[in-house]
Amino acid sequence: MNVDSLIHAKWIIPVEPKNTVHENYSIAIKDGKIEAILPTDKARSKYTATEEHELQQHALIPGLINAHTHAAMNLFRGLADDLPLMEWLNNHIWPAETKWVDPDFVKDGTELAIAEMIRGGTTCFNDMYFFPDQTAEVCTHVGMRVVVGLILIDFPTAWAKDADDYIFKGEQVHDKYKHDSLINTAFAPHAPYTVSDEPLKRISVIAEELDIPIHMHIHETAFEVEQSVEQHGKRPLQRLSELSILSPRMLAVHMTQLNQEEINELARLSVSVAHCPESNLKLSSGFCPVGDLIKAGVNVCIGTDSVGSNNDLDMFGEMRTAALLAKGVAKDSTCVDAHTALKMATLNGAKALGLDESIGSLKKGKQADIVAVNLDQLETAPLYEPVSQIIYSANRQQVSDVWISGKQLLKNRELTTMEYSRLMEKAKQWEAKIKS
Amino acid sequence: MNVDSLIHAKWIIPVEPKNTVHENYSIAIKDGKIEAILPTDKARSKYTATEEHELQQHALIPGLINAHTHAAMNLFRGLADDLPLMEWLNNHIWPAETKWVDPDFVKDGTELAIAEMIRGGTTCFNDMYFFPDQTAEVCTHVGMRVVVGLILIDFPTAWAKDADDYIFKGEQVHDKYKHDSLINTAFAPHAPYTVSDEPLKRISVIAEELDIPIHMHIHETAFEVEQSVEQHGKRPLQRLSELSILSPRMLAVHMTQLNQEEINELARLSVSVAHCPESNLKLSSGFCPVGDLIKAGVNVCIGTDSVGSNNDLDMFGEMRTAALLAKGVAKDSTCVDAHTALKMATLNGAKALGLDESIGSLKKGKQADIVAVNLDQLETAPLYEPVSQIIYSANRQQVSDVWISGKQLLKNRELTTMEYSRLMEKAKQWEAKIKS
Repeated sequence: MNVDSLIHAKWIIPVEPKNTVHENYSIAIKDGKIEAILPTDKARSKYTATEEHELQQHALIPGLINAHTHAAMNLFRGLADDLPLMEWLNNHIWPAETKWVDPDFVKDGTELAIAEMIRGGTTCFNDMYFFPDQTAEVCTHVGMRVVVGLILIDFPTAWAKDADDYIFKGEQVHDKYKHDSLINTAFAPHAPYTVSDEPLKRISVIAEELDIPIHMHIHETAFEVEQSVEQHGKRPLQRLSELSILSPRMLAVHMTQLNQEEINELARLSVSVAHCPESNLKLSSGFCPVGDLIKAGVNVCIGTDSVGSNNDLDMFGEMRTAALLAKGVAKDSTCVDAHTALKMATLNGAKALGLDESIGSLKKGKQADIVAVNLDQLETAPLYEPVSQIIYSANRQQVSDVWISGKQLLKNRELTTMEYSRLMEKAKQWEAKIKS
Repeated sequence: MNVDSLIHAKWIIPVEPKNTVHENYSIAIKDGKIEAILPTDKARSKYTATEEHELQQHALIPGLINAHTHAAMNLFRGLADDLPLMEWLNNHIWPAETKWVDPDFVKDGTELAIAEMIRGGTTCFNDMYFFPDQTAEVCTHVGMRVVVGLILIDFPTAWAKDADDYIFKGEQVHDKYKHDSLINTAFAPHAPYTVSDEPLKRISVIAEELDIPIHMHIHETAFEVEQSVEQHGKRPLQRLSELSILSPRMLAVHMTQLNQEEINELARLSVSVAHCPESNLKLSSGFCPVGDLIKAGVNVCIGTDSVGSNNDLDMFGEMRTAALLAKGVAKDSTCVDAHTALKMATLNGAKALGLDESIGSLKKGKQADIVAVNLDQLETAPLYEPVSQIIYSANRQQVSDVWISGKQLLKNRELTTMEYSRLMEKAKQWEAKIKS
């Protein structure tokens, strides 16, 4: 039988079934989808392929899913660090955004971010930023999978002037891409403290109609919770629950302030949580109780947040930090083992975004979103357990090849749909402008 | 004036003076030492050099000092993860050590570790392991700077049979290398719970005579503290204090269990602390109160611990985790800023090891232990602040060149004193043996 591509690898870690490592296995790809996963000797006799890849020192994993980003902010990387949260936001990030954010900024910043993500094995990102139309356009152009956030915030920005305008423009973006296989959308009301009840209620209804997720910062800091208690007489989660916006559609980002009752309620309502460990640490927001959430049955995925508070889009680093920090916080060294960390960064992310039918694991019939990690390096030698090496020792420079829907976007570390030198040039142009 | 080498760089971050970044500066090296640090235009007119390096996209930093390792354990990388601490030690690490540790194991494991360290910008490591004679020999052979731990533990091992034997063999190693410029020694009594009072008292005296530091795991876990209270009626630090072993010579590793009184006492006695954030997280040992220690004036440096509990010797990763975790633990986003993290991994390490007269910063008269980091990468673009990029965005693959005492050990990512392919072969041989 003829297929488009055959990838032969030393190891395949499909994430589904759980805790599985196939040795000397191959993936056959046809029409952008996974046709079969089988032992290499069988693959060689059963299939002929237009393209064949021999990755005998590599592990194949599902493409990583970054569950929370503000991609365009890559242009602000390292602009302001080590500051108190409110000073950071009020005196640095928000003024810089007011000054610089326009369609060009979003286009160039997002492109830079996508290049960083692809070079680091990320094949899908869940974004929240202004000018989501630009984000979608760049992704289409370079072949990146995305969930574009249809942002909503109470104050006017360069993107929209009020709730009606935000929702209208968001729906336009949704309509334009609703039949696109790479571009998905989610409503992205910024946070409980920046979006009022009325638009939240509307979003809750429209998200149901359009059948898309809702992506929101919730319980990021103790201050947010206190402020809500003061202003509304209740914690943000309680308020959101009363607005009927908590459901399996909801992807709640950060969630560092949770009591056991809230954790149980999240599980009952099938709300997903996007854990951003490095951002939470850097901004000293608090510790997300990942161990307790998992124990309660909550779907927890992983995001980097923007480079403003990270300062990278490195999902390898983020998986490691998530696995390590969960153990420290739970006081349990068995909490979030290596396989679980990988699942959080793949299948759990897909589930949170309503995309687990098509991505998140290496499985017949799913989209061929595949990442090859070269484990034949001194930093990952000797090798007793490939998943342990991927989570605890490897880093993103060991990503050699990346496919999205069967199309190769990284080939032996070279980007195939973007020109590296042009991206660097653009980054330097923005650097010069923003510095001045 | 003629010098041996001139390195021209885009940025030099000397660590001393504090918070300094020189732009378009050069370092002149003569007889293994830093002869001068000056603007590049002046350097070009003042000096001629046998070797000249143009690093116009790079930052030069002092060689990183890994303040706590068990280097030979690199051969066990990823052998056992995500287990409860005591099961990990009793059923995996200690049996593997009993079975495998001999002079060859230490030689090969240490060599692999040194290669990893040099490729990651580490130029000095403070080690604790059996057969320290082998460790010293490998370091001499490849040109690596080390503080070899003269280990002491209450039970017999392949290295020595009892306290007398450990101390005798340790002194032999010390004597052999006492005039060596690269090889330093420290006493390394394993931990309060594995070394009894008598040998600790002796070590305290001999360390004074030999004028060397003492390197010890202390207050690593709550269990260690409880056990000591039960057995000795006092916390380990109290017991060590009464044994008069706490002094500026002491480098206390881990220290996750500390009350304010103990923190003040450490400051008063000028005890240094080696913080190993990733190991503490992975083994869920607890959080070292780095912010409080620094506030009290304690000298805090950074170590990776062994790959058994990390699983790498990546000081870039460790600096980042230290900077991030300190903010989370202290609930203060200004705690351990980027410059402080770099200082912890360089000058503070040197100070803890009694080597700050000769290494730890880029300063006229100090040894030329220098690391070049190539910041011209998409992952560190745009660039507003080189130190921020080094701590929060760069990773160790961006280390391009490394010098120890003026000798180049890494040249555009190639090891100069070790053969990469032979190291990989050795690693695979051990992997096959240990797996079987």
